[in-house]
Amino acid sequence: MLTRHSIPIRVRYSETDAMGMLHHANYLNYFEVGRTELFRAQGGNYRRMEEMGMFLVVAKLEVRYLKPARYDDLLILTTELQRSTPARIEHVYELRRDDELLCTARSTLACVDRDGCLQRIPDDLHRQTGEP
Amino acid sequence: MLTRHSIPIRVRYSETDAMGMLHHANYLNYFEVGRTELFRAQGGNYRRMEEMGMFLVVAKLEVRYLKPARYDDLLILTTELQRSTPARIEHVYELRRDDELLCTARSTLACVDRDGCLQRIPDDLHRQTGEP
Amino acid sequence: MLTRHSIPIRVRYSETDAMGMLHHANYLNYFEVGRTELFRAQGGNYRRMEEMGMFLVVAKLEVRYLKPARYDDLLILTTELQRSTPARIEHVYELRRDDELLCTARSTLACVDRDGCLQRIPDDLHRQTGEP
Amino acid sequence: MLTRHSIPIRVRYSETDAMGMLHHANYLNYFEVGRTELFRAQGGNYRRMEEMGMFLVVAKLEVRYLKPARYDDLLILTTELQRSTPARIEHVYELRRDDELLCTARSTLACVDRDGCLQRIPDDLHRQTGEP
Repeated sequence: MLTRHSIPIRVRYSETDAMGMLHHANYLNYFEVGRTELFRAQGGNYRRMEEMGMFLVVAKLEVRYLKPARYDDLLILTTELQRSTPARIEHVYELRRDDELLCTARSTLACVDRDGCLQRIPDDLHRQTGEP
Repeated sequence: MLTRHSIPIRVRYSETDAMGMLHHANYLNYFEVGRTELFRAQGGNYRRMEEMGMFLVVAKLEVRYLKPARYDDLLILTTELQRSTPARIEHVYELRRDDELLCTARSTLACVDRDGCLQRIPDDLHRQTGEP
Repeated sequence: MLTRHSIPIRVRYSETDAMGMLHHANYLNYFEVGRTELFRAQGGNYRRMEEMGMFLVVAKLEVRYLKPARYDDLLILTTELQRSTPARIEHVYELRRDDELLCTARSTLACVDRDGCLQRIPDDLHRQTGEP
Repeated sequence: MLTRHSIPIRVRYSETDAMGMLHHANYLNYFEVGRTELFRAQGGNYRRMEEMGMFLVVAKLEVRYLKPARYDDLLILTTELQRSTPARIEHVYELRRDDELLCTARSTLACVDRDGCLQRIPDDLHRQTGEP
């Protein structure tokens, strides 16, 4: 089962800040794209999941910013599903420019329904990590 | 009836770009805040309106950027409801730093339901411009 | 000379709003990506241009929002350089989902130096439209 | 010496996502506003600091999202400078809606010059925490 996926992302002008660097909040949007594309590569479809009333929300996040990225840099984001239980999904991320590691991060997702109540994570998502 | 309302807005770091200026897309977010606050000052509540299934969507927009704004500038946004019919609401905007006019804009809103179908604009909104 | 260029853009979750649609301000970020990629396809490099102290700024913008886009929609943005003089560059944009036209827009750019003073637009940019 | 400061922040429409909640990346922009306003309340001016060529960059970030915020919610953000050394500044954050705690976070900042090289944090910033 696929648990690791890399995608290219080019830094947009609107994502930079007055320091001339990719603004630190925008890394989180990249990680979200990384999760969407990992899920798609696994044969899933997050949009359909939401249409069925299941939403994955970020419960916890840790980011280490090592080196800045700049406008028009072509980056590679690697997203890895590290652990999945009926209650929690954990991903880790690495963002690189060529061989340079710019940022590492870890997120924990939970599953809620339309009213924000915690739900058991659907088996497809859970099983995808290959854990028993 | 109140049709014109001014609010202060301070430029956030995350809203600047590599040129060191307020990024041009973020002006549209300011205009949206201006509409929300004009509506609130009129005694309306846009959030409650959405909860009732009526959504105002931007159909048309024209912006003229005259001078740049920078991080931490304290700006004054004036939002004016210029015309309102059962089908369309038109606002004009002026963004200033002290006496300097930085930006002018005009937007046309339409009203849709949850499925995106065009709706008659509710009478309260319509009547607020004082037109017959 | 290439004056028209199309790119695919997938709507990110962070670009949607509470209505479930691509937020209207984010279209402007897409247009900016469109201009960057048109310029690259022409053999230019906007980042290098900025490093030399020349900045293109948006002076005027008109957008017509025809139909909404949603999370994960795969859109096609067509950017066309319509007119270029030593003082102004005009682009038009069309954003589509399959055969549906979702949005059209037009922008006017000017060229400034680091201090925000208006500059003559460099000949390479000017000549790229093939005007005499 | 002031090391703790609270500000009101109203959730903008453009900051929500298709789930109808404040998008998780936008909390980071709020924290940045919190730091700017704490610094201002201490008598500092971050913009002037950047003009002198000193930049504070986020090196590390941890966020716990406890409950969602929604469009038009009026939140209170409390920013506290917890520790400051010549090499690092640590802040903690609490975001509340009335008595409900929605989010807690912690960030570590470092100081760099225009070229991104690490700098000793200026004494004013350092001394502000009251540490020896």
